[in-house]
Amino acid sequence: MNDTGSLDHLIEALRRLPGVGVKSAARMAFHLLQHDREGARVLAQALDAAVDRMGHCKLCHTFTEDEVCATCRDPRRDPGLLCVVETPADQAAVERTAAFRGRYFVLMGRISPLDGVGPNEIGVHQLLTRATDGLVHEVVMATNFTAEGEVTAHLLGTALRERGLKVTRLARGVPAGSELEYVDLSTIAHALVDRR
Amino acid sequence: MNDTGSLDHLIEALRRLPGVGVKSAARMAFHLLQHDREGARVLAQALDAAVDRMGHCKLCHTFTEDEVCATCRDPRRDPGLLCVVETPADQAAVERTAAFRGRYFVLMGRISPLDGVGPNEIGVHQLLTRATDGLVHEVVMATNFTAEGEVTAHLLGTALRERGLKVTRLARGVPAGSELEYVDLSTIAHALVDRR
Repeated sequence: MNDTGSLDHLIEALRRLPGVGVKSAARMAFHLLQHDREGARVLAQALDAAVDRMGHCKLCHTFTEDEVCATCRDPRRDPGLLCVVETPADQAAVERTAAFRGRYFVLMGRISPLDGVGPNEIGVHQLLTRATDGLVHEVVMATNFTAEGEVTAHLLGTALRERGLKVTRLARGVPAGSELEYVDLSTIAHALVDRR
Repeated sequence: MNDTGSLDHLIEALRRLPGVGVKSAARMAFHLLQHDREGARVLAQALDAAVDRMGHCKLCHTFTEDEVCATCRDPRRDPGLLCVVETPADQAAVERTAAFRGRYFVLMGRISPLDGVGPNEIGVHQLLTRATDGLVHEVVMATNFTAEGEVTAHLLGTALRERGLKVTRLARGVPAGSELEYVDLSTIAHALVDRR
């Protein structure tokens, strides 16, 4: 009696996307089938092409179609500075500031013991190899200021310092444009300690 | 210099899904490429299969892989009762009640002049043909109780009544399990008018 098998499979497959529950998945499937069948084809092709072509940069670990990504190949970048971020999205955020002209290492995750993600899962060995290439003299830890990001920065920073590297962390403080009255206490406390 | 073309295309394609902005699309793409490449393949195949196989039931207009959907083929259903709903999800909600044993007509939308959706876009001619098959004697309008749903029910109801059919609407009233104190005024007002 099942005459909607391929629709059910599509809803099931859409649920594998992060943040998509059964109702959103059904809404997406209905939308594609009713209003945007071409979009469904385009998405199917884009998924296959991305899985076929995207690999990881052998230097910085971010997504790239080449062996070494465009950022790592850029000769104008300072080879002595290495910025460690959690994700390509974080890297893009740092890039947008135009305030950093060094290289990157993208962890593609964060240490999170509760999820079974330890140092090995986020490529600590690749990072140590990368940072001890003889050119890098400072590693800027730009992991998130969440519990997991702080633990990641602490553990990786310790390992890097043991290898004689200078390790710094993004400054904590009051965000630009904010009024003190509305800034949370822990941020103000950190800004006081790190005052300059 | 662009070494992430297929990733950019994937993010672009994911944005065609309803409710997905550029940040969610990037998060989905990163997740698939980093943690669930098999899921990306499965989704690509499911999209293609659904677009290839899913069509519309020629009687009730819902999604089906066959010419006539399983519900319309079911001989145990009352051919004299026709329930008009906006979407397959609404049809599923009515089905779950097990309180309706007639047939359905799925509009696959609602009249919404602001979005350029008029009676023709939601298959009013198919509905009129379907409802005047000589067997249907009552049409239950089960469109949503939103502005668009009410307009749809009103316009379609008028057209169906002109063809001599009995047209009813789902009862409006206080939801099961609710305390009057917390029910909005317009619902209580409707429940008072429709008291029985």
